Amino acid sequence: MMLKKVVVCGVGLIGGSFALALKAAGAVGEVVGLGRTQASLAAAQQRGVIDRIASDWADALHDADLVFLAMPVGQVASVLVSMAPYLSSTTVITDGGSTKVDVALAARQALGAQCAQFVPGHPIAGAEKSGVAAARADLFYQKRVVLTPLAENTEAHIALVEHVWQACGAEVSRLDAEDHDRVFAAVSHLPHFLAFALVHEFAQRADSAQLFGFAAGGFRDFTRIASSHPEMWRDICLANRSALLVELDAYMVELMRARVLLAGADAEGLQAMFDTARTRRDAWLDGLTPPGE
Amino acid sequence: MMLKKVVVCGVGLIGGSFALALKAAGAVGEVVGLGRTQASLAAAQQRGVIDRIASDWADALHDADLVFLAMPVGQVASVLVSMAPYLSSTTVITDGGSTKVDVALAARQALGAQCAQFVPGHPIAGAEKSGVAAARADLFYQKRVVLTPLAENTEAHIALVEHVWQACGAEVSRLDAEDHDRVFAAVSHLPHFLAFALVHEFAQRADSAQLFGFAAGGFRDFTRIASSHPEMWRDICLANRSALLVELDAYMVELMRARVLLAGADAEGLQAMFDTARTRRDAWLDGLTPPGE
Repeated sequence: MMLKKVVVCGVGLIGGSFALALKAAGAVGEVVGLGRTQASLAAAQQRGVIDRIASDWADALHDADLVFLAMPVGQVASVLVSMAPYLSSTTVITDGGSTKVDVALAARQALGAQCAQFVPGHPIAGAEKSGVAAARADLFYQKRVVLTPLAENTEAHIALVEHVWQACGAEVSRLDAEDHDRVFAAVSHLPHFLAFALVHEFAQRADSAQLFGFAAGGFRDFTRIASSHPEMWRDICLANRSALLVELDAYMVELMRARVLLAGADAEGLQAMFDTARTRRDAWLDGLTPPGE
Repeated sequence: MMLKKVVVCGVGLIGGSFALALKAAGAVGEVVGLGRTQASLAAAQQRGVIDRIASDWADALHDADLVFLAMPVGQVASVLVSMAPYLSSTTVITDGGSTKVDVALAARQALGAQCAQFVPGHPIAGAEKSGVAAARADLFYQKRVVLTPLAENTEAHIALVEHVWQACGAEVSRLDAEDHDRVFAAVSHLPHFLAFALVHEFAQRADSAQLFGFAAGGFRDFTRIASSHPEMWRDICLANRSALLVELDAYMVELMRARVLLAGADAEGLQAMFDTARTRRDAWLDGLTPPGE
């Protein structure tokens, strides 16, 4: 597979790594960049992440094989509206957003029948670092990418996006958009929300300096994701609000249940809870064979 | 500093690493082990972590310079009662428990006036792995050890324990026991409790397999401490119950506050919360120069 021209809109960690991975795989002729911030695009060009900066959507989409949207999900709708007038019938679009129901809705509204060319996706890879400086060609290597195809997509469109991600070294799977948003509300969006909340609570307190003075490795790992990109996570929380609220409420119920054990000094109950958690987590880790091995 | 004989009671990750560190530093003549499980002691002896297994407390304490108690904090009181009759006036005792108010109380009750020889301590190092197989000589290297001396301790006793930990490569500081338990309830015990609760909640659900099937790096780091030793953490939660309840309640208030932002789709409020958290955490990481550098 060889794409002559790929457009990356939003050349940060995800968009930049996608461009670098395709280049490393020899799967692309030219990568053209677009984005909000000229300085970021210039930096991306200087690093060789993109070959050139598009002057506008007309320029970007001319003869493009593929467009990758890699901006915070809150911007996807307006970007699709901007590009729609210049979209030919031969360009395929995909995205890297962490929520998929809202992206599918935005695609249908902005593109109409051309939404058949849009195959929503979500690479399960990232880092608490953001920006093109953090981009690397192996970010998606042996990581999962979940596609949530629209009913309108043809198998050829889906297969193209699948192959592109495989060229980046990723393991591709498919999920219904609603299932995707429910699952990731639990395993990703909730932990981010919880970690942000803990650090925020500590940051507000009168004894904040003392707390951070004694915080160590456990705290560091638990809160790693609280160093994630605030705007990106604001958009994810808003876009997946209803599913996240369900998960947050379930977790608060669990905390109240656990609080009853603690307040009642229920040694057996606490140990059973901790045992179940450790056993389940260790079984999960044992089963985590990197794709392809 | 050279100790002729050190007794380690509880030769697991912490006790075993302490023994290995003292040996690596050439700071000890003989290390004698005691514990609940003969198989663990035999494994520790075979690895060279301890030189021999004590037959009983009389044997262990004979001519001992230092005793290190490294079992779950729930056992410290009964162990002190068992050893008290054989304790000479020249043996210094310390411990590695994660809670300090309960340990101080147990020392006063079991040792009476001889509690002056007991200097409570807490090495801020660990791993989600437990057992002597995970022990290593550099576990405490450039890590903090907090001593919470009793009013009865002499400066000489405290200095001895301080020097022993420095020989292990640790950075030693002192804190009041109540302050210690309050601070660690927040920065350590609460995150463990929260991580155990999240994995436990997922483990109980009908869609558990699907959730774990899509869990990735963020979840893995957030829940790393949910693979910690269940019995040890049961004891810590029980021993520090009142301080932990205060922290848990403060966190649940924070979650309710954050839930209001989420349910109300308060973009500005969410972003401000995330920004504050990321900025504070990054400032903390920037300030984390390893001691001695």
